[in-house]
Amino acid sequence: MSETAAKREANWVESENSSRKVKRAKADEDNGHFKIMFADKEAVVILEKTPIREDTLADLFSGSVLKLEMKNDIYSTYRLQAPHHLNEIKTTVVCPATEKHIKKYQRQESFLVEETGEDYESITLPYIQQQSFSLQWVYNILEKNAEADRIVFEDPDPKVGFVLLPDFKWDQKQVDDLYLIAIAHCRGIRSLRDLKSEHLPLLQNIFEKGKEAIMQRYNLPASKLRVYLHYQPSYYHLHVHFTKLGYEAPGCGVERAHLLADVIQNLQSDFQYYKTRTLYFPLRAEDGLLSKFKESGKL
Amino acid sequence: MSETAAKREANWVESENSSRKVKRAKADEDNGHFKIMFADKEAVVILEKTPIREDTLADLFSGSVLKLEMKNDIYSTYRLQAPHHLNEIKTTVVCPATEKHIKKYQRQESFLVEETGEDYESITLPYIQQQSFSLQWVYNILEKNAEADRIVFEDPDPKVGFVLLPDFKWDQKQVDDLYLIAIAHCRGIRSLRDLKSEHLPLLQNIFEKGKEAIMQRYNLPASKLRVYLHYQPSYYHLHVHFTKLGYEAPGCGVERAHLLADVIQNLQSDFQYYKTRTLYFPLRAEDGLLSKFKESGKL
Repeated sequence: MSETAAKREANWVESENSSRKVKRAKADEDNGHFKIMFADKEAVVILEKTPIREDTLADLFSGSVLKLEMKNDIYSTYRLQAPHHLNEIKTTVVCPATEKHIKKYQRQESFLVEETGEDYESITLPYIQQQSFSLQWVYNILEKNAEADRIVFEDPDPKVGFVLLPDFKWDQKQVDDLYLIAIAHCRGIRSLRDLKSEHLPLLQNIFEKGKEAIMQRYNLPASKLRVYLHYQPSYYHLHVHFTKLGYEAPGCGVERAHLLADVIQNLQSDFQYYKTRTLYFPLRAEDGLLSKFKESGKL
Repeated sequence: MSETAAKREANWVESENSSRKVKRAKADEDNGHFKIMFADKEAVVILEKTPIREDTLADLFSGSVLKLEMKNDIYSTYRLQAPHHLNEIKTTVVCPATEKHIKKYQRQESFLVEETGEDYESITLPYIQQQSFSLQWVYNILEKNAEADRIVFEDPDPKVGFVLLPDFKWDQKQVDDLYLIAIAHCRGIRSLRDLKSEHLPLLQNIFEKGKEAIMQRYNLPASKLRVYLHYQPSYYHLHVHFTKLGYEAPGCGVERAHLLADVIQNLQSDFQYYKTRTLYFPLRAEDGLLSKFKESGKL
């Protein structure tokens, strides 16, 4: 940042608190979260553009300046400069901010990784095995040692059974952001990569009975549900996500989610589909697995 | 809307085109899509607030006015009034807009539809043919009769060639929300359903040269890109979406997006994959195709 720019920033901050001085600003991707130094204090500054309100529309249209950018047939685009009071930016400051605050508000950069069947065997699987992530909390749920009162539905069958319960992200206050997880009773299926045609009865059972249970409990039909697996999953024990269609649940993007219906079809036509196929998934900059792919010259 | 407000709107519009007159405005939820009357013509106006760019941060901080709202311990919130040129609203106008345009831009309840290969032949294809949506604006681009100056890259080959240009949703001010569309020169491929193994050279060419062009122009490597097709697409001429990984572009959810890399692999192992496979996609409540599925007892 140039000296002049830094000075101007300092002026801005000084208008609020003369003892503070901006030393540097670092933007975090595109989410409007910035880490800033005020003199010797680190701060998190969050800038949010808020939705346009219908009741301001008339004033917005009458008080704005329009700059034409492009015209093609019936389509045209403009830059609109709105009156200040109709286009404010919501600003939240955390100061002083600890490292914990800074990490919390920073969105990490992600990279799309291309993993062939061989890459899985030589890079991903050894990494998963070496990390030996604890699944104790999953077993606690399956054995009713924890969260038993949160269970929405259970099929106790050891081979095709599962437990259905709300994801922590869902506060269960409204079905608009419904988010449930089905956790298979059967152990040892780490991810999509382990699925074979022998697991079709398990997958079909989770799909059918999960949808039925959600219909019964929340009155949401299958046509309002997005049912999918993650790859990579966040823990290596087979689980399926049920979210409401229209709710942009984190992790429902095409780069990480796989519709259970597609998984079933793919295994029906090729029992080795997920063993041999090249799969794509995002990994965050600080993910240990990303380092492994980089070390192998795969990124 | 009050008469005065309507008058002020009219002034705004008249500054652009004196024959137009705003009669009414209707907001759709909170997504900045509005239906507006210009004299006797219906129009869709889309107002979008764009991400905050890091390189404008110093100017933003120095040139803005801050209004304190709340202070509690280390947390405080403000309303920030930014200089006009740093806080423009991206405005897209479709005028005159048909009922179909208005429906397209309105957020409506969605339903997940299950379409077998037979359903496509008996329900979807006849519906597409009967509607005969105009593709004139696509041909205008391909023939350089419109938007020629927006083209980022072109491979003019009539069989495997394509034009790459920014999507309307992207204002091109920052790569954080990069969104480009590759439109195939080849005509007659309506959607995923029409893709056969004979189209692999076309798909691979779009994939490879599209990624190269984005690297050259925007310095974004393939590992930062999400490259996919929509099913159903919003227009029935083959096109591919390139969006930045990490940007939650509308329509990048697993229920509508298909990674181009997966499409290529699937066609390589089964040339009839997209002809025979059951596909799932969301349709909005007022979509004519949804009625067709309902009439056939499929929903």
